[in-house]
Amino acid sequence: MEFETETNEIQVGVVGLGLMGSSIVVALLVAGHPVSGVAPLPGEVDGALQRIKSHLRHCQESNLLSQPIESYLERLTLSEDYQILNNCRLVQECVVEIKEIKAEVYKKIHEATREDVIVSSNTSAIPISMLQELSPVPERFLGIHWAEPAYLTRFLEITKGQQTSDETGQWVFQLAHSWDKEPTFLQKDVRGFVTNRLMYAVYREIFHLIEKGETNLEDVDKAWRYDAGSWMTFMGIFRRMDYLGLEDFPQICRNTFPKLNKMTRVPEVMQTIADERARGIQDGKGLFTYSGEEAKHWEEAFAAFNKDIFRLAEKYPSRPLSDKSEIQQGDDK
Amino acid sequence: MEFETETNEIQVGVVGLGLMGSSIVVALLVAGHPVSGVAPLPGEVDGALQRIKSHLRHCQESNLLSQPIESYLERLTLSEDYQILNNCRLVQECVVEIKEIKAEVYKKIHEATREDVIVSSNTSAIPISMLQELSPVPERFLGIHWAEPAYLTRFLEITKGQQTSDETGQWVFQLAHSWDKEPTFLQKDVRGFVTNRLMYAVYREIFHLIEKGETNLEDVDKAWRYDAGSWMTFMGIFRRMDYLGLEDFPQICRNTFPKLNKMTRVPEVMQTIADERARGIQDGKGLFTYSGEEAKHWEEAFAAFNKDIFRLAEKYPSRPLSDKSEIQQGDDK
Repeated sequence: MEFETETNEIQVGVVGLGLMGSSIVVALLVAGHPVSGVAPLPGEVDGALQRIKSHLRHCQESNLLSQPIESYLERLTLSEDYQILNNCRLVQECVVEIKEIKAEVYKKIHEATREDVIVSSNTSAIPISMLQELSPVPERFLGIHWAEPAYLTRFLEITKGQQTSDETGQWVFQLAHSWDKEPTFLQKDVRGFVTNRLMYAVYREIFHLIEKGETNLEDVDKAWRYDAGSWMTFMGIFRRMDYLGLEDFPQICRNTFPKLNKMTRVPEVMQTIADERARGIQDGKGLFTYSGEEAKHWEEAFAAFNKDIFRLAEKYPSRPLSDKSEIQQGDDK
Repeated sequence: MEFETETNEIQVGVVGLGLMGSSIVVALLVAGHPVSGVAPLPGEVDGALQRIKSHLRHCQESNLLSQPIESYLERLTLSEDYQILNNCRLVQECVVEIKEIKAEVYKKIHEATREDVIVSSNTSAIPISMLQELSPVPERFLGIHWAEPAYLTRFLEITKGQQTSDETGQWVFQLAHSWDKEPTFLQKDVRGFVTNRLMYAVYREIFHLIEKGETNLEDVDKAWRYDAGSWMTFMGIFRRMDYLGLEDFPQICRNTFPKLNKMTRVPEVMQTIADERARGIQDGKGLFTYSGEEAKHWEEAFAAFNKDIFRLAEKYPSRPLSDKSEIQQGDDK
């Protein structure tokens, strides 16, 4: 299926204008779409507009804009009223991870929009197959999972649920190629999605080592940043294995797998933090502690880093020689 | 313990001049040490010298050298004879991961060197506590674990075994601060070390998802590069959790941990590769396939990427405000 329509002719909607929703609105504006943003919570529109303007300035500093900021804002409509979605072809839901609330949102979207609308969720907590049962039109429902900040990361995971039609999945996958992303298309609904799922395997093992007193938070972060971080953006998991030569892996799997942790409970450190209702950088209390100045630093430094790593990733594409043959074996396995 | 001696007055040795050994020789030369490199395999010296020269040119292109390449080569001695180690304070072993061979190497090192020599291993397969039993002087034996390429990565993991003396550990840890690294110091001997151990937790889970047909190699690498890679070099594991706000983690641990895989066998794909004796980028057959041109591309591109990510990591230090208070909570937990 070829995509013949320009993004500026495809109206898209976003419901839920919190941190992630605002960031997705900006990604879609920058991709050229006219965007309708619905704030289901009263009074949320003003804060969302400020966030969106601030993100657009960040895009401008990062040389992502082809037009002045005002041109993007002219294509944006924000309201508490779902009726502004009436002409949308795609509506992204980004509301709180509570099924009853999402069900209500899907009902309101379908009441307000045209018949062929596709609805997507940014959920990372509820399986798409479960969520689509709450939708009046499950075959035109799927997951679109963004990374923060949505306008300055290349990651985008599109996930079909059991009832999602092929046509819906393909349409969104094709469209997403106009968004300056490296979209992946999951045919099956893996709970937690790939990266999240793998990170929880990492969390389980590392909290186990911390609980045993084998290492400490600061050393782990150093190891992860300077060791894993030294190849991750370049290679991913499997190409790195190819790079290292594969010879020792089977033996190390046999030695190491039986020693990996199998805990199913919440790690002690996480439970302590939950009991204290600590919110990390937001309130200065977390796994580390932060003064106001430090919290501000981490926010600003990450905004700068996002820009740097986005450009760096661009220098090292997945298919550098524009030759698709190299990935076919991977696809088949 | 303060380090009062300049690196150029501390002779160090490397035994085993394969890919990793050659790379470590260069890291130590660049740090200012006079280096004695022993090739335990006959005929290995010539190839090692070529690799070392090539690495030094890579360092020069990356602006890591303060002197001409020749000055570094003047401080290098290569031989098959262990006697060149006679004045070394520290000898790094980088030979094949076979205990009998390592035991023989440790014996020869101690026969050739001064009484107070410290011996370190780059092993990532054998616990340091087990390995040091093969050493004639276990209290002056420890692990120094480098990342490839050793001269252009910030990672360095120093690991004490059960019998390693505090003095030995501290001496090496202090010295390593002259090497332009971000060294971590493991007081206990965690089999597989932190990053390797966590990567095997990742491998187990991801090969399980691949075996179930839930995803494919190419999509996983994309997700890992563009999602995990978008924050890893900046934040590490725990600071990212603080950044995300911590609120949802306990619930997702409870939901996700019980679903994570517990396999102890070698994953099918890895077993197939082992049966085929595929060597990845080295022979063009691996998880992906590679033409000669593609293999060359990945080697060269990674050399360029190393330089970029090394500089990028430098822009975002672990303790940006030079205030150590923020990490104390982390240290205590």
